[in-house]
Amino acid sequence: MHIDQLIEDASRGDVRAVGRICSVVEAGGEDAVAVSGQLYPTGGDAWTTGVTGVPGAGKSTLVSELVEFALTDKNRVAVLAVDPSSPFSGGAILGDRVRMGAHSGNDKVFIRSVANRGHLGGISTSTPAMAACLAGLGFEEIVIETVGVGQSEVEIASAADTTVVVVTAGWGDSVQAAKAGFLEIADIFVVNKADTAGADAAVSDINSMLDIGPDTPWRPPVLQTVASDGVGVGELWEAVVNHRKHLVDSGELGERRRMRAAHDLAMALQAGIDRSMNSDEPTSELLDDIVERRTDPWSAADRLLETL
Amino acid sequence: MHIDQLIEDASRGDVRAVGRICSVVEAGGEDAVAVSGQLYPTGGDAWTTGVTGVPGAGKSTLVSELVEFALTDKNRVAVLAVDPSSPFSGGAILGDRVRMGAHSGNDKVFIRSVANRGHLGGISTSTPAMAACLAGLGFEEIVIETVGVGQSEVEIASAADTTVVVVTAGWGDSVQAAKAGFLEIADIFVVNKADTAGADAAVSDINSMLDIGPDTPWRPPVLQTVASDGVGVGELWEAVVNHRKHLVDSGELGERRRMRAAHDLAMALQAGIDRSMNSDEPTSELLDDIVERRTDPWSAADRLLETL
Repeated sequence: MHIDQLIEDASRGDVRAVGRICSVVEAGGEDAVAVSGQLYPTGGDAWTTGVTGVPGAGKSTLVSELVEFALTDKNRVAVLAVDPSSPFSGGAILGDRVRMGAHSGNDKVFIRSVANRGHLGGISTSTPAMAACLAGLGFEEIVIETVGVGQSEVEIASAADTTVVVVTAGWGDSVQAAKAGFLEIADIFVVNKADTAGADAAVSDINSMLDIGPDTPWRPPVLQTVASDGVGVGELWEAVVNHRKHLVDSGELGERRRMRAAHDLAMALQAGIDRSMNSDEPTSELLDDIVERRTDPWSAADRLLETL
Repeated sequence: MHIDQLIEDASRGDVRAVGRICSVVEAGGEDAVAVSGQLYPTGGDAWTTGVTGVPGAGKSTLVSELVEFALTDKNRVAVLAVDPSSPFSGGAILGDRVRMGAHSGNDKVFIRSVANRGHLGGISTSTPAMAACLAGLGFEEIVIETVGVGQSEVEIASAADTTVVVVTAGWGDSVQAAKAGFLEIADIFVVNKADTAGADAAVSDINSMLDIGPDTPWRPPVLQTVASDGVGVGELWEAVVNHRKHLVDSGELGERRRMRAAHDLAMALQAGIDRSMNSDEPTSELLDDIVERRTDPWSAADRLLETL
């Protein structure tokens, strides 16, 4: 495969080449590692914003509007839609890529739907690598949209610099179990569909929960939007920019990116081990050794990390 | 630490030593690896049964009764209770170990509550290692009890040889999202509290779902129990024994244990990386390299696995 050519084309802004790069990364294996290795070094300045929240909160519309505002600051913006119910990611089922209606024909915006992992909504292990590659290709803002169920909200927080949690009025009743998880990961709260009854109560509700939570250097703002009319989306983009400024000024960004490095490394190791399951690679022999009890997983991991 | 002495005492049946072994494994680090390394080789014959399901389904009562039946076949039985709402694991919050009332004073039964990970109910990374160590200490049956929310049901299936999913009448209404996940992992279905209205309908419901699912060599039986009266628990134990026989006879056990080896290895690597975050170990330097973009997580993982 002409990976160098592909990277050259994609860097020039060829949308089809960008899409093929994403496909290579998604497929995993040797080519994916080669692409990631080439594109990772230059991606450090891009900002990754995760948008998660309850199903039906209007995340896709909000993301679409947010992209408009991002384009006032940034030259090129990419969206990775992992939400299986997102209109963008319907295409993931067909192995296809669907463009956000409002942005189609705009070469400054790249949209990619990503298949999620299994029934539980986890983001696929290739999503962080894809975001890193898009960053290396010159996309200055990457938005990852995912539905907030199960473990995925923690994963999105690991993959993003800024995490936006989107809810609607009355959200607390339906997602009692998810509340604590959302509180843990949110850098910014958005009550969308704020023109419906109960939106103010939802804001107070979230603020009360934040009040009894731990004191942190960054207090997540609680914003209201009506994404379908574009109301409040400018303030949301401003909050993303402010949060970035906070992370940079406080030095917290370095710590977050270190945690992300650890997370991505662990995921990459897991993907490598999974891939070797049905191969004759050395990792596969190690698995045999574990099954035959010639070694154990914990000693093996220890030895592996010590070889560094 | 006198690990050899501890292992000797625990192998002789000293319950306090067994508890201390679990604490060492739970704490992680060098001692944990040493203990796992010593106990893993001899644990291959133990059977691990995972019990998961909807909150309030009566899993703890069922597990307590199941232990009685297990003791008719097995000499020593251990229970790891990860369910945060379990009466056994209340103690986990206090860092304490609570014994199942009915079995207290019985040295053939060891019960340990295990703290779960975060708000989302994932089993802690040390739980599989703890189960492996208990197996190495001569416990012939290990039961891991966990509440089925979020990602934990997949994790329990990775940690267990036989997975029992416990529901009650009307379960489908409350856990629509979890249904697919349960279907994916269940080797045995139990409708507990079968003396309540709707229990027969629940059985039909599950059977209908299994009918439209893929044809598999093992069709999960759907049993009814009234755990509080011990009704049907003998049949459940029999089903566990039958499932083991099926896995052994079909050769599927080898494949399952290979998948577990891969899963445990990946988790052990992740734990090792997390541990190194705030240390000056080589792994920590690698994370620095990734943050500074001198290397990327995917190439680093590739190189690491190639050193095998």
